[in-house]
Amino acid sequence: MSDQLIIFDTTLRDGEQSPGASMTRDEKLRIARQLERLKVDVIEAGFAAASNGDFESIQAIARAIKDSTICSLSRANDRDIARSAEALKGASRARIHTFIATSPLHMEKKLRMSPEQVLEQARLAVRFGRNLIDDIEFSAEDGYRSEPDFLCRVIEAVINEGATTINVPDTVGYAIPELYGNFIKDLRERVPNSDKAIWSVHCHNDLGMAVANSLAGVKIGGARQVECTINGLGERAGNCSLEEIVMAVKTRKDYFGLDLNIDPQHIVAASRMVSQTTGFVVQPNKAVVGANAFAHASGIHQDGVLKARDTYEIMRAEDVGWTANKIVLGKLSGRNAFKQRLQELGVELDSEAAINAAFANFKELADRKSEIFDEDILALVNAQGALDQVDTFHFISLAQQSETGERPHATVVFSSDGKEVKASSDGNGPVDASFKAIESEVRSGAEMLLYSVNAISGSTESQGEVTVRLQRNGRVVNGVGADPDIVVASAKAYLSALNKLQGNSEIVAAQG
Amino acid sequence: MSDQLIIFDTTLRDGEQSPGASMTRDEKLRIARQLERLKVDVIEAGFAAASNGDFESIQAIARAIKDSTICSLSRANDRDIARSAEALKGASRARIHTFIATSPLHMEKKLRMSPEQVLEQARLAVRFGRNLIDDIEFSAEDGYRSEPDFLCRVIEAVINEGATTINVPDTVGYAIPELYGNFIKDLRERVPNSDKAIWSVHCHNDLGMAVANSLAGVKIGGARQVECTINGLGERAGNCSLEEIVMAVKTRKDYFGLDLNIDPQHIVAASRMVSQTTGFVVQPNKAVVGANAFAHASGIHQDGVLKARDTYEIMRAEDVGWTANKIVLGKLSGRNAFKQRLQELGVELDSEAAINAAFANFKELADRKSEIFDEDILALVNAQGALDQVDTFHFISLAQQSETGERPHATVVFSSDGKEVKASSDGNGPVDASFKAIESEVRSGAEMLLYSVNAISGSTESQGEVTVRLQRNGRVVNGVGADPDIVVASAKAYLSALNKLQGNSEIVAAQG
Repeated sequence: MSDQLIIFDTTLRDGEQSPGASMTRDEKLRIARQLERLKVDVIEAGFAAASNGDFESIQAIARAIKDSTICSLSRANDRDIARSAEALKGASRARIHTFIATSPLHMEKKLRMSPEQVLEQARLAVRFGRNLIDDIEFSAEDGYRSEPDFLCRVIEAVINEGATTINVPDTVGYAIPELYGNFIKDLRERVPNSDKAIWSVHCHNDLGMAVANSLAGVKIGGARQVECTINGLGERAGNCSLEEIVMAVKTRKDYFGLDLNIDPQHIVAASRMVSQTTGFVVQPNKAVVGANAFAHASGIHQDGVLKARDTYEIMRAEDVGWTANKIVLGKLSGRNAFKQRLQELGVELDSEAAINAAFANFKELADRKSEIFDEDILALVNAQGALDQVDTFHFISLAQQSETGERPHATVVFSSDGKEVKASSDGNGPVDASFKAIESEVRSGAEMLLYSVNAISGSTESQGEVTVRLQRNGRVVNGVGADPDIVVASAKAYLSALNKLQGNSEIVAAQG
Repeated sequence: MSDQLIIFDTTLRDGEQSPGASMTRDEKLRIARQLERLKVDVIEAGFAAASNGDFESIQAIARAIKDSTICSLSRANDRDIARSAEALKGASRARIHTFIATSPLHMEKKLRMSPEQVLEQARLAVRFGRNLIDDIEFSAEDGYRSEPDFLCRVIEAVINEGATTINVPDTVGYAIPELYGNFIKDLRERVPNSDKAIWSVHCHNDLGMAVANSLAGVKIGGARQVECTINGLGERAGNCSLEEIVMAVKTRKDYFGLDLNIDPQHIVAASRMVSQTTGFVVQPNKAVVGANAFAHASGIHQDGVLKARDTYEIMRAEDVGWTANKIVLGKLSGRNAFKQRLQELGVELDSEAAINAAFANFKELADRKSEIFDEDILALVNAQGALDQVDTFHFISLAQQSETGERPHATVVFSSDGKEVKASSDGNGPVDASFKAIESEVRSGAEMLLYSVNAISGSTESQGEVTVRLQRNGRVVNGVGADPDIVVASAKAYLSALNKLQGNSEIVAAQG
């Protein structure tokens, strides 16, 4: 059996299914570029038939990414699969991923189909897909809760139709490592043509065991592809974390004996990018990418680490891209220094115009803030990126005041389709007053689902990065704004979210 | 073998070792009460010899808690153990937990002791402890990386001296479930008197497998105690999560066949209390206690859940204490309704005076905010709790303003030892200006390590809860402040942190 483990990242598909984690096409493209830098083998870029927005994102990623295979999810029907194939046109390497549920519960209650109907639909879907693209992955949804006899028949049939990867997900996060590993092993032993496909695992984290289950599927079961997401993003408690899988396989090479293409140096930057784009924070005690993952507090541990680093460390922070929080640029830095630092940080802006705009924002920031950290630059570019698309609203200026005993008040000046608008309101606090001021003119009618602030390098001298999540008619968008003044950052984030709500991508219900 | 699994919570000891997670005595006492409500079997309340603050916290908890065993950590020496025994006086049930490292790396590099010296010191420590208290736990630090032959000799010796629990930690988070389970199993088979003690597991999460490793130690290895923390708090990537272990054992009772005393209804409240006290956020995709842990976004999943709940749910949100975000009180609610709601939320205030103070804050909030959610009440009481101790500084009022093109400015009025102080400053933003204003008078010289904001019920109409983490001379404190005005909440949090810095508890280096 091959000793190469394929890393299949589904941050842009299963990760995006987290309530509130929806991303725009440009955000997805930026993350896809970071995944390519990470040397992810397969990037699942979306679910082409789910919405026009998803389709366009997959199309843009398929055209831009050269080094990773680009994959689109499809239900097991011709229309979905054809739509995926269309979105993937022009990709260097393309994969169609088709799925149907095979557990008794899902077949009876959700699909309302008999097992024979499911088997037939799976077979026809793979046959149809294989006529369009050579690389076909088949997933048996809720596979771990399926009847093994029936599942073996389905898998044998789809391999005969030409499926090249077979994925057996633990869709509801119910598995235990030993049981899941042996489940995969038994399937592989019983399916007569099992060696004609690569086996894959896809585990959810509802009981906190997604990583261990995936690794048992690999070690005990013989799977050679792991499906995972950055930061473990994903529906409910999320998916298996890419960063944990990768570092476990590397740190315990003595046990797994597997090779990976991944370049872990880019892990921390990828984690930040996904967290900033979605507004989903990473907890400090998250393995590998949490702020404390490599920090030592107790006297005993500090002492141990000083005496011999490996007393308490099994990985090195530098290996996954942690760097000291260094001052890199100031107000005297020129455009070339700024551009070079962006490249070192792994940020690629789409055009010279975008670099010029980011540089103008950088100079403005440097006027107000003497020390510019890497985090500040990433926040700047991230907020900038969020404004790359067709913008209806632009922030111009803000004045606000609050005083104990009086009602906080704010005036926001912004442009709406190029026309300057001045709006005032009071509110429960200055941030609330700013949002009410903007709403008094825009009247979006959107509901606010989340408001969160991350001060970037810890102190309030650094920029505040604000995420605002709005919902209207079932559409959820995240706006991000950064500024040393938290009220200004909030107003920018609110306008950025409103711009996204103006976007024309409709979310179509995925279920047929 | 018993089918009862003992839950040993070390949030207050190993959890507190997270850089920045230090807690005051009153905060620890409040969390200990919540752990008692959860029916945790053993509460590790601290490390008595580490500092006077730790000693006093253990003492307070030992006197207040009746239903859980209270445990204090001690190095393997008479002084530490005597100090633990002293702190535990008056406890209904007390345990001394003593440890020494047994891995070649730790013995040679950190302890600079020979294996024979370590063996002798372990034996003498347990003998000394057993003369003071019947319930003695022995931990072989870095046990998983120890030589099995040597570890067997140490364990046999300490059981002969009367150790009643034997813990074999994976101190650095290096284990894999299958290997760790078999490691424990082999030890139990080889140590001749192994049946005279209960075996325990303690796993760190550096590779994301703490829960799976702990469960393998139980299922394969035969351990009957799991050491864990709320939210998986702990040094580096943290410890095994209590909530994940508990729900895995309950949800997969078919596989584990074990009983637990835990009442999971109190899990979510415990998670919030620990997160609010330490300022360590819980990521939305955290299993069991993350905001999204039970949320469904994609059309397919929503559809499935509507048709049959168990298509995508293996646990029920209500079972772990999630409730709808309901309006519970308003400005017309009386003191009794407020007090009753506190009880329903599992909050116990220490005195009638504390309830009166909280009620006054509640009325003030209700004047400014029409809908009061459970989250608002918890934030109120939490910020209140942080001010229960001897306070030097109290917030009185604040005025601030910012306007594009001008430097933000703030004036804060607060009392310092009863004397009113008015301080003004400008800054990069209104929050920064407020902090600079306070510092211009207090001159604490503290360094800010973290500034974070959580808007409680999602929108900016709700209160903002701000955490400020300050450091001075190696001491780290967290201040919390809540207010609908984010700048006011920030100033309150800063003053709360300064009050804690004034506290007289010294942190003594734990290593002898």
